[in-house]
Amino acid sequence: MLAAKAVEASSASAGSDGLIHGLTAQEVRLLTKESLDARSLAYCPYSKFHVGATLLTRDGNFISGANVENASYPVGTCAERVAMSSAIMKGYRMGSFKAVGVATNLEEPCSPCGMCRQFLREFCELSTPVFLHDKHGQYIVRTLGELLPMSFGPEHLAA
Amino acid sequence: MLAAKAVEASSASAGSDGLIHGLTAQEVRLLTKESLDARSLAYCPYSKFHVGATLLTRDGNFISGANVENASYPVGTCAERVAMSSAIMKGYRMGSFKAVGVATNLEEPCSPCGMCRQFLREFCELSTPVFLHDKHGQYIVRTLGELLPMSFGPEHLAA
Amino acid sequence: MLAAKAVEASSASAGSDGLIHGLTAQEVRLLTKESLDARSLAYCPYSKFHVGATLLTRDGNFISGANVENASYPVGTCAERVAMSSAIMKGYRMGSFKAVGVATNLEEPCSPCGMCRQFLREFCELSTPVFLHDKHGQYIVRTLGELLPMSFGPEHLAA
Amino acid sequence: MLAAKAVEASSASAGSDGLIHGLTAQEVRLLTKESLDARSLAYCPYSKFHVGATLLTRDGNFISGANVENASYPVGTCAERVAMSSAIMKGYRMGSFKAVGVATNLEEPCSPCGMCRQFLREFCELSTPVFLHDKHGQYIVRTLGELLPMSFGPEHLAA
Repeated sequence: MLAAKAVEASSASAGSDGLIHGLTAQEVRLLTKESLDARSLAYCPYSKFHVGATLLTRDGNFISGANVENASYPVGTCAERVAMSSAIMKGYRMGSFKAVGVATNLEEPCSPCGMCRQFLREFCELSTPVFLHDKHGQYIVRTLGELLPMSFGPEHLAA
Repeated sequence: MLAAKAVEASSASAGSDGLIHGLTAQEVRLLTKESLDARSLAYCPYSKFHVGATLLTRDGNFISGANVENASYPVGTCAERVAMSSAIMKGYRMGSFKAVGVATNLEEPCSPCGMCRQFLREFCELSTPVFLHDKHGQYIVRTLGELLPMSFGPEHLAA
Repeated sequence: MLAAKAVEASSASAGSDGLIHGLTAQEVRLLTKESLDARSLAYCPYSKFHVGATLLTRDGNFISGANVENASYPVGTCAERVAMSSAIMKGYRMGSFKAVGVATNLEEPCSPCGMCRQFLREFCELSTPVFLHDKHGQYIVRTLGELLPMSFGPEHLAA
Repeated sequence: MLAAKAVEASSASAGSDGLIHGLTAQEVRLLTKESLDARSLAYCPYSKFHVGATLLTRDGNFISGANVENASYPVGTCAERVAMSSAIMKGYRMGSFKAVGVATNLEEPCSPCGMCRQFLREFCELSTPVFLHDKHGQYIVRTLGELLPMSFGPEHLAA
């Protein structure tokens, strides 16, 4: 079912401006490629579940991550958080990101876990598109706000 | 804005069966009270942000938690996860839970962080109602599936 | 090798005051029993690694935990943190704990992961004895300070 | 007290081979500089506690990280884990690392939290030296095995 949606979304989502959720066709192609490629970097001897994630910055860089597991399972980290942490190390901050890509080896598009949605939320606008890929590179798109509605964030701590 | 919604939701949500998202008025009153009371148990010297959470089990028990912070911030844990872990220790599992309640000291209803949504998702149906309280006990309700759409879960690992 | 030490430690560790690291023989027996029993409460479909942990409070209560895993591995939590979180919910704080017990299904005594050592460190003195059990209930003892030397803690944040 | 030790250790630790825990004086200088510099990349609006960490690989690369916090405190990550995750993305694995450096803004050398010790343990030998710097760049050295004795690791899961 999701796979069917994936095909539909990937072919039908170009807007009247010729952009796909704000990205050019070339940017989407690269985001997809980088997200899928990143899976091979995963260190996941425990789950055998390879995840790749890529951030596209507004200044045109692609920054990738993969999951890094640990014998003590809760100590490991996920692809999206690895990608975002690397981006923060390069000086990117809230306002720097144009899109997020995620890819697994599943037949259907797979979504970030709740912890990663929360991690992304610290640095991405709620309108940021997240491209959820299946193993073949087909994707569906949801905004971060759609994936984490009524989200908890920095403004709540300041209240 | 959310506060206005809160008033509306709490007064308007009783269904034709006299139940509020499947709970009796008495159950809701207790869920609210327990969620708010649990805040006082928080160990939060770093954020000073008191959170309480309560689970209502199908067999009528209320199990509460509060946030437990750590000098190394990522090592701490949140109210919802403490409540759910305690429930698991009592033998409750997927299928045992009727509702979740969360409360903070904010003027508006506050929602679980993404990590806690993911933790709850392992043991609660997507239809489970989450009562999000403001500091005064007014609440709005969202299902877990609404708070964590397209969620990642056990079935993806088995695929 | 550790198993040999375990036997030695469990038989040889009673001090001249008749106490074993500050505990009576009866307290040790109960700590061992509770730690081993708690393993059966673990929710660990991913690792199949059952861990039990028990805290002995100065006022004579035993509070147990087990590991609670999640499909998103980093979102899960460990036995020691579950036990300590439950204790915090009962109002226990730094100064309340007399000993920690941990048990797994391994042939040799197994130690808490680093994350749990850090979590315990927020509420236990460095002199607190940690009883590390093998699957049969034989144990060796290390203080928290021995398990987490030069530890990071609340006093560093206040500096 | 630690500061005094720091001075002593940094001046006295060169072995008969002219190496400092296996590093050349130049490598130590760079490890120190990179660790201290990385602090400025921290995203730590909540703790205001800047931490930098650097890995020296056997093939001579320096890979740095800093802490990346989150409004939901447990969702954030630490400097050491960011550095190691970046290294894993570059293809480094167990056997690749020669030394770890950590730096904070404290007057005395500060040590990794337990969670980070556990994360490092997955990829570093227990003999790997960890250079713990004070804010001025003075350091003391402990091996990972000294910082996480009797550690839990991959071999326990395989047992």
